[in-house]
Amino acid sequence: MNSFSDNKPVNVGLLGLGVVGGGVAEALLEQPHAIAGQVGRPVHLKKALVRDPSRNRDLFLPPGVITTNPEDILADPEISVVVEVIGGEDPAARYLEGALAGGKHVVTANKEVMAKRGPELLSLARENGLNLLYEASVGGGIPIIGCLSRELAANRFRSVRSIINGTTNYILTRMANDHTDFSLALAEAQERGYAEADPTNDVEGYDAVYKLSILAGLAFQRRVAPQDIYREGIGRLQLQDFRYAHELGYAIKSLAIATREDGADNGADGAIQARVYPALIPQDTMLGKVDGVYNAVEVEGSLCGQVLIHGRGAGRGPTTSAVVGDLIEIARNLQTGPCPLPAGTIEESGSIRSIDDLVCKYFLRLNIADRPGVLAQIARILGEQDISIASVLQKDADPAAQTAEIVITTHPARESSVQKSLKLAAELEVVQEINSLLRIED
Amino acid sequence: MNSFSDNKPVNVGLLGLGVVGGGVAEALLEQPHAIAGQVGRPVHLKKALVRDPSRNRDLFLPPGVITTNPEDILADPEISVVVEVIGGEDPAARYLEGALAGGKHVVTANKEVMAKRGPELLSLARENGLNLLYEASVGGGIPIIGCLSRELAANRFRSVRSIINGTTNYILTRMANDHTDFSLALAEAQERGYAEADPTNDVEGYDAVYKLSILAGLAFQRRVAPQDIYREGIGRLQLQDFRYAHELGYAIKSLAIATREDGADNGADGAIQARVYPALIPQDTMLGKVDGVYNAVEVEGSLCGQVLIHGRGAGRGPTTSAVVGDLIEIARNLQTGPCPLPAGTIEESGSIRSIDDLVCKYFLRLNIADRPGVLAQIARILGEQDISIASVLQKDADPAAQTAEIVITTHPARESSVQKSLKLAAELEVVQEINSLLRIED
Repeated sequence: MNSFSDNKPVNVGLLGLGVVGGGVAEALLEQPHAIAGQVGRPVHLKKALVRDPSRNRDLFLPPGVITTNPEDILADPEISVVVEVIGGEDPAARYLEGALAGGKHVVTANKEVMAKRGPELLSLARENGLNLLYEASVGGGIPIIGCLSRELAANRFRSVRSIINGTTNYILTRMANDHTDFSLALAEAQERGYAEADPTNDVEGYDAVYKLSILAGLAFQRRVAPQDIYREGIGRLQLQDFRYAHELGYAIKSLAIATREDGADNGADGAIQARVYPALIPQDTMLGKVDGVYNAVEVEGSLCGQVLIHGRGAGRGPTTSAVVGDLIEIARNLQTGPCPLPAGTIEESGSIRSIDDLVCKYFLRLNIADRPGVLAQIARILGEQDISIASVLQKDADPAAQTAEIVITTHPARESSVQKSLKLAAELEVVQEINSLLRIED
Repeated sequence: MNSFSDNKPVNVGLLGLGVVGGGVAEALLEQPHAIAGQVGRPVHLKKALVRDPSRNRDLFLPPGVITTNPEDILADPEISVVVEVIGGEDPAARYLEGALAGGKHVVTANKEVMAKRGPELLSLARENGLNLLYEASVGGGIPIIGCLSRELAANRFRSVRSIINGTTNYILTRMANDHTDFSLALAEAQERGYAEADPTNDVEGYDAVYKLSILAGLAFQRRVAPQDIYREGIGRLQLQDFRYAHELGYAIKSLAIATREDGADNGADGAIQARVYPALIPQDTMLGKVDGVYNAVEVEGSLCGQVLIHGRGAGRGPTTSAVVGDLIEIARNLQTGPCPLPAGTIEESGSIRSIDDLVCKYFLRLNIADRPGVLAQIARILGEQDISIASVLQKDADPAAQTAEIVITTHPARESSVQKSLKLAAELEVVQEINSLLRIED
């Protein structure tokens, strides 16, 4: 049935030759036997699209490979797989559409395109009998996309809990372990190349939102658009938060979490809630121990239970591993005829829960007047909103100013109630400032 | 290209209807729409082989499914996939050969057969253009086989480090955290169903050896037979070992480790060393934190770096997840024609390093006479074997008996030298007993 006699190479067109594109080109050019051994025939880099052909690339590219015209790839009938590592929505999305419309399989590392337009592109691929693989779009070295699509496909998933932004995890690790404050940790991350000159995308959580949108869509087979995901950045965290969290047995991590409720119809349409924010997580859990630029994704499936994958989320090597892994998968499939496609589709419908409906424990840090009866006033407001206090720490009294800082943790409560009670508390004459409202994800 | 109009079911024959077989049957019978949705057509349980058809199974099986004759499955031309969950070498291996010879794809959960006869069976499958998938043979809920074969296929692997026996990890966790001694922890594991009545296979490391043989074979694409793997059980560990290890910042885990050296020829034939033994591992590493019945496998690849997968290693749910995942993969492939096969082959040749050549740090615990000059005598023996001492703890002196216990940790040293020096030390009049020789895996 399976013949390896047809030894014609699989021709690849590469869109982008930056850090990751360079890694992919290097793997194809310098490890051809290793890849051919995995596939059963050579995988050949035929063309690579660049903006500036004169740039020095530290790569020996055979003559004729580099082009500045995307049509040299998209319209070349000999190229059967297009690899996109340009990033950003445009023109990448347009190229991907063009490749799929032209009958080419696609490998992409583009989280923004897959988050915003993944369902449409996957449909287009399916209609044309093509593969669109995107392992590198989430957590480079962490093979979670493949696992959800293949190895763990027998499961119905209840939750995805993850640390999927290396920049913020590096900053939070520095803040927690070395008491470096936010701006210093950020500057250091920029110096080391972990954060960009404009860090908004990472620090404000947009990057994690794109990745969570992709993971939740795949895990729940439902569209979870970026705008469906509640988002908070890490810029307001202060060193005290880490200190108090540590005393309580928690780490603070920027978590990207999506959960699905059991629906009436055997869970088939349970509402989905998705959020990206800094939160407290027990120090002694596996996720609580993910440090530095490492990432981790933990899924909970109906059969497998909790499975966590830990690895490097970004960087040339891990992202190249993901892209070339997808390329090998497609090239193997080409070996034997039409490609097998996951039959699962992503549904458009289904309800999304607002953050207001979240029920979890909370960590609140407030500056108050240091005098008797203040805690009673705050406790009364919380009680009126049905919020039950789990612990209170009174800290860092400032005798001169007659102020103190208190940290309150709650039993599970509803987000909208917590927000309302903090608003009321802020109006109290004895409350100087509400410093932190963080969720505790046990 | 890819048509779903052919809606004929994929017929499955199930060999074995025990705990895992029951889980697989339940998934096929009770979740048919979920699986058909993943595959694109129904996956139908046609026959299930049992030894005792009268046994009560808590399963509603349609009439005619149960059989006691393996030929009802192996010789049925309508059955295209055989799932083997009997376990043990015989008759399982014979059935697998029969299935492959008869043109049927195979899914197996059988670590013993895959460790002892995997390379031959995989060759037979390849020759016949068939898939032989075995995700469930190692770490049920941990999708490591699929990841090594597919998602991480772009990597050349340097090492596999793992905790892949839930029984021993449960026992060691109890010993470490609750100071329960070995025999009590074992009895408790048996009571909870984590250990078998005859625990030899788990406690002595045979189970982990089979699994490591499979992982190393796949990671290094080289045969690593069970007899090539050095093996030590956990039965000699005492509570003191855990106490002292903890003081030094280490956990004690039964580790299954295989490493490949860089070979002359760009690493293509670096020697492999493989071992299963209880060892010290830093408490603050991800592997050091794997507790209870959880398992974890960490691989180090040339591109991806360190990737760790953590999950449940055994049990009905996780093993069913792995088996049904493989079944979905095969059924999807059947959908589109011949199946794509990983082209990688497992080579027979290549050198295996003996444990004598291992170089690592050591943890030594001895009972000695509590008088001056004893440590000097031991240190001299170690020094003569080129073993350099990193730390010495003198503990638990017994004034009445005039004895004391000392714990020595070493800098990296050669196993054969450590073994030789301990033999010489044991002959010293002042050394009462050598209690522990454990490796430190940093």
